[in-house]
Amino acid sequence: MSEGKKISVAVIRRLPRYFRYLSDLLKLDIKRLSSRELSQRMGITASQIRQDLNCFGGFGQQGYGYNVENLFEEVGKILGTDQGFKCIIIGAGNMGNALANYENFKRRGFEMIGIFDVDPKKVGTYINNIKVRHMDELDDFVKENHVDIAILTVPNKYIINTAKRVTALGIKGIWNFSPTDLMLGDDVVVENVHLSDSLMVLGYNLKEKRKQMEEKKGAD
Amino acid sequence: MSEGKKISVAVIRRLPRYFRYLSDLLKLDIKRLSSRELSQRMGITASQIRQDLNCFGGFGQQGYGYNVENLFEEVGKILGTDQGFKCIIIGAGNMGNALANYENFKRRGFEMIGIFDVDPKKVGTYINNIKVRHMDELDDFVKENHVDIAILTVPNKYIINTAKRVTALGIKGIWNFSPTDLMLGDDVVVENVHLSDSLMVLGYNLKEKRKQMEEKKGAD
Repeated sequence: MSEGKKISVAVIRRLPRYFRYLSDLLKLDIKRLSSRELSQRMGITASQIRQDLNCFGGFGQQGYGYNVENLFEEVGKILGTDQGFKCIIIGAGNMGNALANYENFKRRGFEMIGIFDVDPKKVGTYINNIKVRHMDELDDFVKENHVDIAILTVPNKYIINTAKRVTALGIKGIWNFSPTDLMLGDDVVVENVHLSDSLMVLGYNLKEKRKQMEEKKGAD
Repeated sequence: MSEGKKISVAVIRRLPRYFRYLSDLLKLDIKRLSSRELSQRMGITASQIRQDLNCFGGFGQQGYGYNVENLFEEVGKILGTDQGFKCIIIGAGNMGNALANYENFKRRGFEMIGIFDVDPKKVGTYINNIKVRHMDELDDFVKENHVDIAILTVPNKYIINTAKRVTALGIKGIWNFSPTDLMLGDDVVVENVHLSDSLMVLGYNLKEKRKQMEEKKGAD
């Protein structure tokens, strides 16, 4: 990656998608690929692909295309799949369960090492071989184990206090599943998954599509 | 909304966030607000807010600010919260369970009217008062009930066939939780929730933040 070059948020957001497509290509034993072919698969323009990958020094070669394995490894390295991030899940409800069972995460460099809850019916059980511990054990656990990321799937009314508690323990990465936007310290990185927002965008697009279809029908 | 004006995807993606913040303001009984105050709460610039809301005709008044209730209703209408979208969930696993239990969706205009699975242990049970039906009943159900949106939480290997099946039944909105990008017909609207992508962006930002912190430490 070129030193000091600031990469736009939009490019960063597209990188995991490249990673997924390249991973699929590798499974299909496809060894090299032009930006045109990648473009057709991904549904984005070839020039966008060239531009995106150029941000990281460009891995293509004129007339040869991209070496899929090489590109996959480089994109992975940029994303940090080699960092071995250790994660804990706070909230062993349905969402916490779903995330603990996601096999995808480990392959991408994220290991779930603990799950916490306050419900006595859940504490002591295992989800995907990870023991559910009581929240009272959180401080000791974080002192004894390096934790990079806290995944917060607690009810919304507990979210701010939970976020404050984990960051006070020195955890710098927060994956937030509550509808509340978390604004924490400058040294904490937050990624919000606002499911309602996503569903509302779908609703909007569906409404607009219907309007278009009706206008088209009217014009025919 | 100005006729024929094309609203950018970025603005659309911000609208649910305005909706959330305005809803919170209403709960706090705040009746009017300047774009500057809204800006401070939301952490985006006041000029961005004015620009965004101008896309929809602008609801502010010089020297008075925004009428919160009015703005909330208008943003809701633009998003389609008054459309009464009917949704079914396909896949009654942890993710399907989590989504069926989300009370937030109904308030935003999305009603869950059916859940489908193939697991005989799940079929016939109820999740949040919604009966889990066998996939064999899907066609009849969709014929008898208007369904706007299918929420797909099936394992990745079944995703493409499931998506084809629901769109063949005439469902035009797909909320996709699998890692596969679905490319369906032109008349079908898809919203993908790629959780791994979100986690990878968090990993990248965490790695970059660490680098920054170390550089800063080195410079001190």
